[in-house]
Amino acid sequence: MSKRLVAIGGVAAGMSAAAKAKRTNPELEVIAFEKSHYVSYGACGLPYYLAGWIDSVEKLVARTPEKFAKQGVTALVRHEVVEVDYPGRRLRVAALDEGREFWQPFDYLVVSTGARPVVPPLEGARLEGVFTLRQPEDGVAIRQALATAERTVIIGAGYVGLEVAEAFRAQGKQVTVVELQDRVLPNADAEVSELVLQELERNGVEVLTGVQVEGFAGDGRLEKVLTSAGEIPAELALLSVGIKPNVELASSFGVATGPTGAIAVDDKLRTNLENVWAAGDVAESRHLLTGEPYWLPLGDIANKHGRTAGTVIAGGRAEFKGVVGSAITKIFELAVSFTGLTEADARAAGFEVKSVWIKSADRAHYYPDPHPFHVKLVYETSGRLLGAQIVGHRNDALRIDAVAALLHQGGTVEDLRSLDLAYAPPFSPVWDPLLVAANQAK
Amino acid sequence: MSKRLVAIGGVAAGMSAAAKAKRTNPELEVIAFEKSHYVSYGACGLPYYLAGWIDSVEKLVARTPEKFAKQGVTALVRHEVVEVDYPGRRLRVAALDEGREFWQPFDYLVVSTGARPVVPPLEGARLEGVFTLRQPEDGVAIRQALATAERTVIIGAGYVGLEVAEAFRAQGKQVTVVELQDRVLPNADAEVSELVLQELERNGVEVLTGVQVEGFAGDGRLEKVLTSAGEIPAELALLSVGIKPNVELASSFGVATGPTGAIAVDDKLRTNLENVWAAGDVAESRHLLTGEPYWLPLGDIANKHGRTAGTVIAGGRAEFKGVVGSAITKIFELAVSFTGLTEADARAAGFEVKSVWIKSADRAHYYPDPHPFHVKLVYETSGRLLGAQIVGHRNDALRIDAVAALLHQGGTVEDLRSLDLAYAPPFSPVWDPLLVAANQAK
Repeated sequence: MSKRLVAIGGVAAGMSAAAKAKRTNPELEVIAFEKSHYVSYGACGLPYYLAGWIDSVEKLVARTPEKFAKQGVTALVRHEVVEVDYPGRRLRVAALDEGREFWQPFDYLVVSTGARPVVPPLEGARLEGVFTLRQPEDGVAIRQALATAERTVIIGAGYVGLEVAEAFRAQGKQVTVVELQDRVLPNADAEVSELVLQELERNGVEVLTGVQVEGFAGDGRLEKVLTSAGEIPAELALLSVGIKPNVELASSFGVATGPTGAIAVDDKLRTNLENVWAAGDVAESRHLLTGEPYWLPLGDIANKHGRTAGTVIAGGRAEFKGVVGSAITKIFELAVSFTGLTEADARAAGFEVKSVWIKSADRAHYYPDPHPFHVKLVYETSGRLLGAQIVGHRNDALRIDAVAALLHQGGTVEDLRSLDLAYAPPFSPVWDPLLVAANQAK
Repeated sequence: MSKRLVAIGGVAAGMSAAAKAKRTNPELEVIAFEKSHYVSYGACGLPYYLAGWIDSVEKLVARTPEKFAKQGVTALVRHEVVEVDYPGRRLRVAALDEGREFWQPFDYLVVSTGARPVVPPLEGARLEGVFTLRQPEDGVAIRQALATAERTVIIGAGYVGLEVAEAFRAQGKQVTVVELQDRVLPNADAEVSELVLQELERNGVEVLTGVQVEGFAGDGRLEKVLTSAGEIPAELALLSVGIKPNVELASSFGVATGPTGAIAVDDKLRTNLENVWAAGDVAESRHLLTGEPYWLPLGDIANKHGRTAGTVIAGGRAEFKGVVGSAITKIFELAVSFTGLTEADARAAGFEVKSVWIKSADRAHYYPDPHPFHVKLVYETSGRLLGAQIVGHRNDALRIDAVAALLHQGGTVEDLRSLDLAYAPPFSPVWDPLLVAANQAK
């Protein structure tokens, strides 16, 4: 008799697991339950929908339930798994639009419940006009509200907050970013934050750092954001102060979380419970530089988690070895990319750290229309590379991937210095900026 | 008494060696002799000067003799070294603009005589209107001739020929590219050639492949190019059928060349003669995949050669470990990049080869203004990576550097598949094209 795989949550990880399992073993019965209206959507694209660069939120969907059905995968939206009877190998599902519930048996389970925005316990945080951004429905609501809003406040200057700041400016709105810490993009090192701040200000974003949001006020709907630096009049506010993994359902039937608060998994995405996998934003990864569990809730990681889990469940061979923490974000004309540890993170992790910060350019000195290109290199006193940060222009910040590759291999500054990188005047100075940084690293 | 370093040739390698040696050991006396009017110029920029995107050829110069003088380095242009008396540790220099010669003693010698275009023994190859492109002076002459030319023919569809084809189109000229082999960019694999051909034709370049040029005809100046496919009327023709290393002077005093025809050097750029180094386009490198000597006459390699030689001569520690053959070129809106071996090269080198060729995109499916992004991955049946080729759009082809980094480390397809690469919708699909290729490689 064929076995049944059920995924709880049908976005990146859940649908990747489902589709890959079915492709690997067509005998499997595969079902995914998704609480929202959409499966397989690219949440990372929501800021660009808000900017008006994508006309419909449906476009974020990679594959519809109909397409999954053609592959033999059942994807049910507006279906929330509300209880898991693990010993009975069944789960209780609420069909939200039908007002009914049913029990669904399973043999294999993938917990892919994702993460949700942190909403601080602030006065007025549930007022109309105060939003978080996570699901397509959030995007639709915000874009609707944006039509009549002129003054917007974004709370939190992480990369999502800043991507939305750009989106709101693209829509011609007044934007104030409020950040509790003393600089924007506080997960980057300070040199990077400084360049990002300049880019935000150059594009008309008002930035308040070291300012605490204390609440929201308004008569039914938002009229002002209350902060430690005074009131900011606004029709729309976005809370973007972080996310946390949706572990509650999994915890309720005995799935163990790790030190990060997300679900602990091995390199096959197995949890502590037999026949239960976890994948995506709800699950940890191993950080290859520290060897420790690490929570990296990003869409590309979720897809890889899902693909690995799906392969393993279907009886194939796959491993997810871990992450080095690579990421990139567009902030107006800047592209900021990361891999490995920042200097601050590396010190906190107990490494003996050195770093260099260099300014170069994105092309040969004589080639038209040059842009600055900054590299920060973080390394151990032994020479082992620990991380890099790039502030570039458009796609050139993808150069970070060369450092990411070296980090995976335990590479050193000397290894970086020796790299034969691609050069031509439209793409790079004759001394590639990564090599300039490596040459300066002593 | 201080020692004297003399560099024969003052472009990328020679001036890098000179400047680095002086910085490393300020006691050294450092002199570079350069035959042309310019030192330290970026020859790779000449096509963009021809396109009119750079208004003066002087802009290609990174540092003038005056700037070198401030660093304590003597750089003499229009000075040609015509003889080397190695046992006497002196060389004879012709001061071309002064009509005199002198003997220059040296303790250490860097041979950085570069390479020159191959000129096939064709009837009329010395006619007015028939050019090669290598030095700034060539660029000036061609740009001048271009002012009155309407119909141009480029012989050779390597990357320099194609960069110049774009330049001539940018100047509004009629361009015919004639290639002896059966496809453009014949050093790439056929899939890449096909996309490049489409881009050339889309931009109004006429391309004739499998056609042999038999000569040039005209009354004093070029009127037509004679080919195996008939005559092509033209006022300007560029011979771009390859280059060869300028080894003659070095050979004349006993410097040994290697199997590629360029000068054989070790990882400190030492030749077979004591106190004689060779660097840049005249010297070989080691190919890290085959372990064999390899000739890679590119500007970035020349700079690294020079830096290494300069450091070693000055008593410092440096090594140039070798190359993997990375390169990138802009062809209209395409960016084509390479690292490692092509499938054809890998087979020729005796590897048991597999490959995949995938089409992806340069951004998430929903992000505006997407462009195709193609990856070819070449690997051994054992899984060891041998090379990659990318046809992308602008800077995104720099992703090749991540593969280059893995090649340096002896990485496998599995290593590539495991990479944590930077993702955000404006920069990449959620499955990075490199990972898509790695996932498809069995």
